[in-house]
Amino acid sequence: MHKLRLQFEDECYPVWIGVRCMDKIISNLHALSASSYHVITDKTVSQLHAGILFEKLSTQARASFWVVDNGESIKSLETVGYVAQKMVKAGIDRGSVVVAVGGGIIGNLAGLIAALLFRGIRFIHVPTTLIAASDSVASLKQAVNLSVGKNLLGCFHKPTAVLIDLSFLRTLPLTQIRSGMYEIIKNALTVAAENIPLLESGLKQDANYSDTELMVIVEAGLLAKQKVMKADKYERKEALVFEYGHTVGHAIELAADGRVPHGEAVGLGMIVAAEVASRLGRLCDADLNLHHRLLRRNGLTIQLPVGVTVAAVMALLSMDNKRGYLCARPDQIAMILLDGVGVPAGPVGRPLVLVDASLVQSCIENCLTGIRGIAAQESRQ
Amino acid sequence: MHKLRLQFEDECYPVWIGVRCMDKIISNLHALSASSYHVITDKTVSQLHAGILFEKLSTQARASFWVVDNGESIKSLETVGYVAQKMVKAGIDRGSVVVAVGGGIIGNLAGLIAALLFRGIRFIHVPTTLIAASDSVASLKQAVNLSVGKNLLGCFHKPTAVLIDLSFLRTLPLTQIRSGMYEIIKNALTVAAENIPLLESGLKQDANYSDTELMVIVEAGLLAKQKVMKADKYERKEALVFEYGHTVGHAIELAADGRVPHGEAVGLGMIVAAEVASRLGRLCDADLNLHHRLLRRNGLTIQLPVGVTVAAVMALLSMDNKRGYLCARPDQIAMILLDGVGVPAGPVGRPLVLVDASLVQSCIENCLTGIRGIAAQESRQ
Repeated sequence: MHKLRLQFEDECYPVWIGVRCMDKIISNLHALSASSYHVITDKTVSQLHAGILFEKLSTQARASFWVVDNGESIKSLETVGYVAQKMVKAGIDRGSVVVAVGGGIIGNLAGLIAALLFRGIRFIHVPTTLIAASDSVASLKQAVNLSVGKNLLGCFHKPTAVLIDLSFLRTLPLTQIRSGMYEIIKNALTVAAENIPLLESGLKQDANYSDTELMVIVEAGLLAKQKVMKADKYERKEALVFEYGHTVGHAIELAADGRVPHGEAVGLGMIVAAEVASRLGRLCDADLNLHHRLLRRNGLTIQLPVGVTVAAVMALLSMDNKRGYLCARPDQIAMILLDGVGVPAGPVGRPLVLVDASLVQSCIENCLTGIRGIAAQESRQ
Repeated sequence: MHKLRLQFEDECYPVWIGVRCMDKIISNLHALSASSYHVITDKTVSQLHAGILFEKLSTQARASFWVVDNGESIKSLETVGYVAQKMVKAGIDRGSVVVAVGGGIIGNLAGLIAALLFRGIRFIHVPTTLIAASDSVASLKQAVNLSVGKNLLGCFHKPTAVLIDLSFLRTLPLTQIRSGMYEIIKNALTVAAENIPLLESGLKQDANYSDTELMVIVEAGLLAKQKVMKADKYERKEALVFEYGHTVGHAIELAADGRVPHGEAVGLGMIVAAEVASRLGRLCDADLNLHHRLLRRNGLTIQLPVGVTVAAVMALLSMDNKRGYLCARPDQIAMILLDGVGVPAGPVGRPLVLVDASLVQSCIENCLTGIRGIAAQESRQ
C-alpha cells in the first residue's frame, strides 16, 4: 500500500491505497491498539468484503459486527441512535475504534456515530465504492438526512485514517463506477481543469477501468479535494465549490427516493447548473457543450428519473441546506455556478450565486423533461 | 447587566448577568441580526418566562417557539430529530439562532440541535435554573441520553452567549435552588476550597437566598469552571474533576427515572465518593465530615431514593461514560476521588482512580441504604 496525506488546515490524516491488500488493512487496524473494534457495513458489503475483514480482525482483537440495511433511508438519526445504543451494550468505550466498510452512506453513518459517542471516538474509513474512495473520505463532514432534506444534521469529525483496497471496487456494478466518475468530472470542471484532457480521452462508456486506471482516478479525486480544502477544512468557503451540481442533484436524489445513484443525480444537477450559467451569460457554449459531452460519455441519460416531477424537485430545492449562506428571498436559490471551466462564479471564498427559482425551474424543464418546446412556449406567454 | 467572559483555551463567549433585565436580553438577542430566532423551552418555563420572552422578541424579529415536555426523558436523539425537522420546515437556516430558555436539559437539547443543524449554527443560553446559570452554561459539551446511560451521545459546540436574568430563578421551587447548590458545594470541595468558609456560614437550609446572594453564587460557580477549563476546554483532562459525585450520581438519577433532581443525585454521589476515598485511606475524617455537614446543611437526605435499588445503581455504573479513559477491568469503576479538600486524587491532568466495584457497592450500601449494620456483617462473612 502507498500513502497519501490529506491536510485540511490543521487537521491531517493518512490515506493508504493498495490492491488486494486486506491483510495490510487488518494490520493497520490492529496497530491502533483499540480496546475494541466495531465494524459497520451494509447487507451487500457484509457478504462481499466486510464479513471477511471482520473474521480476520476478530481473530486478533475484540471486535463486533454491525450490518444495516442498504440504501439512503438508513442514513438517519434513528439509525445513529439504534446502532449507538447496541454498541454501548456491546461495550464500546472511549478507546474503541469504529470501522466503516462500505460506500458514502455507511461512511457518513459510521462517522456520525463515532463523532457523537462519548463526544467523539476514533473511526476508520474502508471505502468500497469509487465515490467513497475518491471523494467522500476526503472530508471532515459527517451527516445524516432528515426527511425534509439531505445531510441537514451532522458535525465535523476527522477520520483517523482511510484504508483503500482497490480490489474491493471490482465487485461494484458498473453504475456505481459511473456514479463515482461524476464527482471526478465535477472536480475537473470546477477546480482541476488540468484533468479535462485525461477525461476527454480516458472516460469509458462501459466504465471498465483497470486497477492502474482506478488508482489514477482515486488519487485525482483526493488531490482535487486536498487542493481546495487545505485552506477550508469546514467546506464553508472555497470548498463549497464541491457542491457543484449538488443543489438540484440532492433534490432529484431525494425525490427519487434512493432509485438514482448519487453521482447520476449530481450529473443531472451539473447539466442544470451549466444551463443556468449559460442563460445568465456566464458560461460560454463551448463549456456548456463540454459538460454535456463528458457527462454523456460517462453514460448519463439527460432526463429526470421516472416518477420524479419538476414540482417535487422545486419543493425540495426550497429547503436546500446552502440556504442561509446568503440572504436569499424565498423565491431564490443559492447555487454554485461556473464562469468557465475551473472558474467558479461569485466572490472568492464564497462561490455561491443567488438564482431566481423560476429560472432554475425553466432550466430543469428545458434540459431534463424533454418538453423543451412546450416549456419554451409557456415561458414566452 | 454586567459581563463576564468565559475563556476555555481558544474558545471564548460572554455571560451577561442582571436582575429583571428581560428587555436587555431581548436587545442582546436582536443585536445578533439572526435571519430567524428559534426559542426552545419546556412546558413549565414556557408559561413562566419563555412565552413572554418570545412575545417580545417576535415583535422585533422573525421568531418561532418550540415547547417540549418537561423532564429528562425528552433529552433524547428522538427529540433532537423531531424538533430539528420542524425547525427546518419553519425555515431555520445557517443565519438563524437557537435560543434555549430553561434548565440544563433544555440547554443541552437546544445546544445539540444547534450543533447538528447545518453542522453548527449559533445558539444562546437563557438559563432559568440555578444549576444551569451557575454550572451547565459554562461548558462546550452538548449531549443527549441513551436509555443505557446519560450524555452518551453528543459533541462540542460553543454557545454564542449566555444571558442570565436572576429574577427568573425566583420562580424556582426551593428543591431546584438546593439542586444547584450541590454543584457549588462540589466546586468548593474539588477546586475552590477558598469558598468553603462562605458555604459554612452562608448555606441556608430553607434555600431562600437574596438576589445579591444568588449573584455571588452564580459567579462563584462560573469562575470555578473557568479556573480549570481555561486549560481544558473539552473537559477530558483536569476538568474531569467536575464529574465529582457524578459517577454514582448519574446512575442514581437514571435509576430514579427523573424523580430525583440532578444536584441531589450528585450530592448522594459525593457522599459515596468521599466514603470510598476514606476507606482507601485517601480522605481524612475531618474532610469526610465536611462533606456530610455541607450536604446536610443544603437539605440532603442521605439515603437512596425510594424504589432505587443498589443492584440497579451497580448495573448502570458498569456503563458509565468515563469508562475507557482508563483501562478498566469489568469489575472496576473509574471515579473522581479526593485526597483532601481541593486536592483531586490521581495524576495531574487525569483525576481518575480505578475502584473495585465491590468497594463502591459496599459504600453505597453503608451510606445510602440505612442497613449499615447488616452490610457490615455481610462483608465480614
